[in-house]
Amino acid sequence: MDFLSDFLTRFLAQLQSPTLGFLIGGIVVASLGSQLAIPDAAYKFIVFMLLMKVGLTGGQGIRESNLGEILLPALFAVTMGILIVFIGRYTLCKLPKVKTEDGLATAGLFGAVSGSTLAAALTLLESQGITYEPWAAALYPFMDIPALVTAIVLASIYTKKQKYLSKRENPSTRQEYLSQQRGTASNRVKIWPIVKESLQGSALTALLLGLALGLVTKPESVYESFYSPLFSGLLSVLMLIMGMEAAARLGELRKVGQWYALYAFIAPLLHGLIAFGLGMIAHYVTGFSLGGVVILAVIAASSSDISGPPTLRAGIPSANPSAYIGSSTAVGTPVAIALGIPIFMGLAQALMGS
Amino acid sequence: MDFLSDFLTRFLAQLQSPTLGFLIGGIVVASLGSQLAIPDAAYKFIVFMLLMKVGLTGGQGIRESNLGEILLPALFAVTMGILIVFIGRYTLCKLPKVKTEDGLATAGLFGAVSGSTLAAALTLLESQGITYEPWAAALYPFMDIPALVTAIVLASIYTKKQKYLSKRENPSTRQEYLSQQRGTASNRVKIWPIVKESLQGSALTALLLGLALGLVTKPESVYESFYSPLFSGLLSVLMLIMGMEAAARLGELRKVGQWYALYAFIAPLLHGLIAFGLGMIAHYVTGFSLGGVVILAVIAASSSDISGPPTLRAGIPSANPSAYIGSSTAVGTPVAIALGIPIFMGLAQALMGS
Amino acid sequence: MDFLSDFLTRFLAQLQSPTLGFLIGGIVVASLGSQLAIPDAAYKFIVFMLLMKVGLTGGQGIRESNLGEILLPALFAVTMGILIVFIGRYTLCKLPKVKTEDGLATAGLFGAVSGSTLAAALTLLESQGITYEPWAAALYPFMDIPALVTAIVLASIYTKKQKYLSKRENPSTRQEYLSQQRGTASNRVKIWPIVKESLQGSALTALLLGLALGLVTKPESVYESFYSPLFSGLLSVLMLIMGMEAAARLGELRKVGQWYALYAFIAPLLHGLIAFGLGMIAHYVTGFSLGGVVILAVIAASSSDISGPPTLRAGIPSANPSAYIGSSTAVGTPVAIALGIPIFMGLAQALMGS
Repeated sequence: MDFLSDFLTRFLAQLQSPTLGFLIGGIVVASLGSQLAIPDAAYKFIVFMLLMKVGLTGGQGIRESNLGEILLPALFAVTMGILIVFIGRYTLCKLPKVKTEDGLATAGLFGAVSGSTLAAALTLLESQGITYEPWAAALYPFMDIPALVTAIVLASIYTKKQKYLSKRENPSTRQEYLSQQRGTASNRVKIWPIVKESLQGSALTALLLGLALGLVTKPESVYESFYSPLFSGLLSVLMLIMGMEAAARLGELRKVGQWYALYAFIAPLLHGLIAFGLGMIAHYVTGFSLGGVVILAVIAASSSDISGPPTLRAGIPSANPSAYIGSSTAVGTPVAIALGIPIFMGLAQALMGS
Repeated sequence: MDFLSDFLTRFLAQLQSPTLGFLIGGIVVASLGSQLAIPDAAYKFIVFMLLMKVGLTGGQGIRESNLGEILLPALFAVTMGILIVFIGRYTLCKLPKVKTEDGLATAGLFGAVSGSTLAAALTLLESQGITYEPWAAALYPFMDIPALVTAIVLASIYTKKQKYLSKRENPSTRQEYLSQQRGTASNRVKIWPIVKESLQGSALTALLLGLALGLVTKPESVYESFYSPLFSGLLSVLMLIMGMEAAARLGELRKVGQWYALYAFIAPLLHGLIAFGLGMIAHYVTGFSLGGVVILAVIAASSSDISGPPTLRAGIPSANPSAYIGSSTAVGTPVAIALGIPIFMGLAQALMGS
Repeated sequence: MDFLSDFLTRFLAQLQSPTLGFLIGGIVVASLGSQLAIPDAAYKFIVFMLLMKVGLTGGQGIRESNLGEILLPALFAVTMGILIVFIGRYTLCKLPKVKTEDGLATAGLFGAVSGSTLAAALTLLESQGITYEPWAAALYPFMDIPALVTAIVLASIYTKKQKYLSKRENPSTRQEYLSQQRGTASNRVKIWPIVKESLQGSALTALLLGLALGLVTKPESVYESFYSPLFSGLLSVLMLIMGMEAAARLGELRKVGQWYALYAFIAPLLHGLIAFGLGMIAHYVTGFSLGGVVILAVIAASSSDISGPPTLRAGIPSANPSAYIGSSTAVGTPVAIALGIPIFMGLAQALMGS
């Protein structure tokens, strides 16, 4: 009872934070038809700045940390990335009017990670004084890449099975059938190109470059004077953009139907809670901080908005981008930020208190 | 005598402020044919940042203020917005070679408000330690919207009267005349769309969103670390851009003739002085601060550079944009900033001293 | 012996500075095929910010300095600008497969100055506590303009001599020969347009405008709150961009051949060391600071990346831009920053210690 009221109080307080205020403000002004627009160049530069800062923090943190600690959380991150896609495979893809390829791409995007959502969580954790391991942001690629790889591999297997079945039913010529057989062998999904494309995406590059520079150089001077003080302000602008984007994408989502909206609403919270549970195991086993548990839950709840879509577009070309981008941007991301983060933080704070 | 010398000293001192220095620097380098250009994306982002900051300041201020105080200044702001257009109607529009529609659009733009000029005034007030009500910036829409609405309504009335007269002189067919009659009824100027378009413009949206976020959320963390410290620096860049733009637009103004230049030079000072007088009434009646009086004068002196032109282009399609944008950008805005603000501030300081 | 080990220690320490770290990071990620890109608008705005800051520092510094001191260093800067082009004329242009016009344009670019390289040097000097005259950055145009003028004049003389020779060997018609003769007179290279174009270029305008504003207005408020604190952070982003650009241009350089690469590698160090020697003369004669000597060496080592190329494209239209831009961006600039600056600073520090 105490736990619940404590949780609710803290949940409501977080709704007043500027991070969420700007997100909701963006949704409101775009819904009212405002002409306000932040230039695309500013958006891209802000994303770069945020991920570079997250990376630099992580890199400087790793220097002073015991690398053994990261093993269990990293394993759980990989597990979540794969698990989220399988959950989508057996829920979203089974719903009426949902094409399997579209559903798999959507699940892949929800398994992949959003740098902006992660940045929002880090700001809120800091503003509430909840500590976390500096390397926790480095869990990002451990969930992001397995999710994208799993989604693309499952989609490829599915497509081939479909072709095979349709061929068996009416094999037009023996010739074609044979070439198809050979094709199966040569077209086996190659995993390395998907991993490589993920790593080369702008979001992961910025994060990993920041990590490397934080590890190898002494970036304290630019970190203290530039990346760190501008972080929360730039994030507020990014939240505004994401809110406006969410409102603008609602139309696309409407086109592909209500089942996507339902999935996009439930999935972030479900994924986040499962990851929160796994994180608590790490908390008890290896002393993973509660702030770190929140971060693990947030990256599970988040869905990729920058680097995921192009990878999926290349990897599952038959899937409809309106379906997965619409679900993620219009519903998934706002839910993860405005509901997910406050819930996970409220849980962590209530657990600290108890 | 003392008053005058005091005023002149302060007026000259303000010319050395970086705000005016950057404006004049921009005019000089553009006149010398420099290739220097600030990217458009940076310009738009800077304007957003400044208006968001002005809005946030206002919103946070309104929380702690007595809303009764704002009534009289707001009423004066509305009065000025309408009055400026009527002044233009009976001066500029009567000048030789000035088409009535062009003159009305120009007067509307000079009645509307410039966020950048307002931002410049706030910076200069702060640098001189002149206090003002935090909600004073919220007077912006009270003058902006009435001015645009009045200009568009007067232009529409004028156009219809012209058509009616030309029809009466040579009514081509009875059929056409009747449809014209019906048209007059159905084409009555709708005020709400103009108000809506103004509110949806990027400048007013940013300002009002900032106000709302300042009122409802707790933006102190991003305000102190981001919007407030960057304000005067971003303003200096904006002043440079506006100076370069003013020099670039001089050619356009030259095309439409010297009467526009004369109006654009006198109008900001005249409007500002009338508003200064109205503000002094509020000063004596309700204790409106002298800093607030300066702000009221500045928003009257300013002419819209971001959100006004598209509204007028849609609302008075027959007016020549070179006329009104040229007058406002090439002469009106530099005069308002480099002469108007120092004059109004000098007056206020001299009145404080006396 | 002590001098050498001292120099080497300091040289290696500078490689860990964030400035060089970001440059090398940019080269690495671009070589690995990353999709990371900083928007062009952000790049241009950053360059403007850096040069404006350098200019403002210089202008404020000149106010308090004895202008007589600047004479000898300025004379040496002019000397270096001309000398570098003549060095290129008698080395690079004599190499096999190097067209004389291409070689002259390349030498002109290596004689011209890079604002970013200068900014990097200023940051590193400050981080190491090495003082320098605030007006030292104002040496920039004294080397930049003579280099471009010399290159364009030499190229023009060469082109005319070639035409004259080919005409003499097979004069197609007497008519043509005569018109050629008249042409030589009327086409005499005009120096003022080249100087004017250099001064109107965006880089020099920003620097000179900053100088003027620093001299004439009181920019302390925006300088302290904006231009100065953001300097090193923005520089880190610029270094990243330049690193990525260098990697991207390597292909272009490969097309024009290894001799350009060799020149681009040796020239910055050679030019810098000659300028360092001249600077030391000024050090002993007029007390020019060792930090100032480093700056003179760095601007000699740097090659223009923003304003030089368009001037050369207009001035030597027959030269191949891949040759000179490739040499400068892909090799010259990284060498100047990552080898040149640490070497010159190490030398200065070792000389201070001795």
